[in-house]
Amino acid sequence: MKTMEELFHALLQDVYYAEKQLIKALPKMAKEADNDELKQAFTTHLKETEGHVERLEEVFKMIGKPAKGKKCDAILGIIAEGKDVIDDVDDEQVLDAGLIAAGQAAEHYEIARYGTLCAWAKFTGKPQAARLLHETLEEEKHADELLNKIAERAVNRQAA
Amino acid sequence: MKTMEELFHALLQDVYYAEKQLIKALPKMAKEADNDELKQAFTTHLKETEGHVERLEEVFKMIGKPAKGKKCDAILGIIAEGKDVIDDVDDEQVLDAGLIAAGQAAEHYEIARYGTLCAWAKFTGKPQAARLLHETLEEEKHADELLNKIAERAVNRQAA
Repeated sequence: MKTMEELFHALLQDVYYAEKQLIKALPKMAKEADNDELKQAFTTHLKETEGHVERLEEVFKMIGKPAKGKKCDAILGIIAEGKDVIDDVDDEQVLDAGLIAAGQAAEHYEIARYGTLCAWAKFTGKPQAARLLHETLEEEKHADELLNKIAERAVNRQAA
Repeated sequence: MKTMEELFHALLQDVYYAEKQLIKALPKMAKEADNDELKQAFTTHLKETEGHVERLEEVFKMIGKPAKGKKCDAILGIIAEGKDVIDDVDDEQVLDAGLIAAGQAAEHYEIARYGTLCAWAKFTGKPQAARLLHETLEEEKHADELLNKIAERAVNRQAA
């Protein structure tokens, strides 16, 4: 790779793969969650994530490339750690705390990546792509804050 | 695992392993960086990271456990993606943009994890541990913001 265009395309493929993996992981997290608000948060974020995939497909179109993922070791690692929590934790409320932590690790990965994609889109003269990526970035930040609130309000207190 | 104490200990081991991996990765990132300010940021953050390891060791002491890491697939994935960028990008300034992205992915993983550890320390009655973890959290956020500034100020413009 020699240009920002190529680097942007590579990261777009990484995030596209990551979002698709999260579409598989989120229903499992919703199923395992005991707290109703947490269950709802994962279900809502699944729908948002489907929208993120569509936005990424629009960005692929804007740069004239097919929408295709590229294996993202980071999200696979984050999801594997979430799976370990589900397998290893026996208490329902402690599991909820662990699920929130796993969800926030995934959100922060996406916040980092969409922040970068958004900046790169701006600097390479793609304001429309930057706008779409920014919309997703805001939804990821909001999802992270919601998990924070659920943790502070109920889950951590009950689990401790 | 059945208690928040056990979950806290498991995540502490995860982050301890992650910090140790970053101590190995940061000198390589500093070496590969072309922009002087970026090189300096990675070098400074290496020193901070050594301090984070020491703080984690204090927290291990506080909970009466030996300081020991546990393989963290997430950070290994994030570091592997950073290594791919180093291997695949030929242009110096595009590589700087890629290194910043890799650094921010690592920072955000840590921001997520220290945020969680800090909340769990509070809810399980460990205010001293929470204070130490919060200090590190603030340094990780600051390191992320510094990378943002370096990207906005120079690297993205030059690379694009």
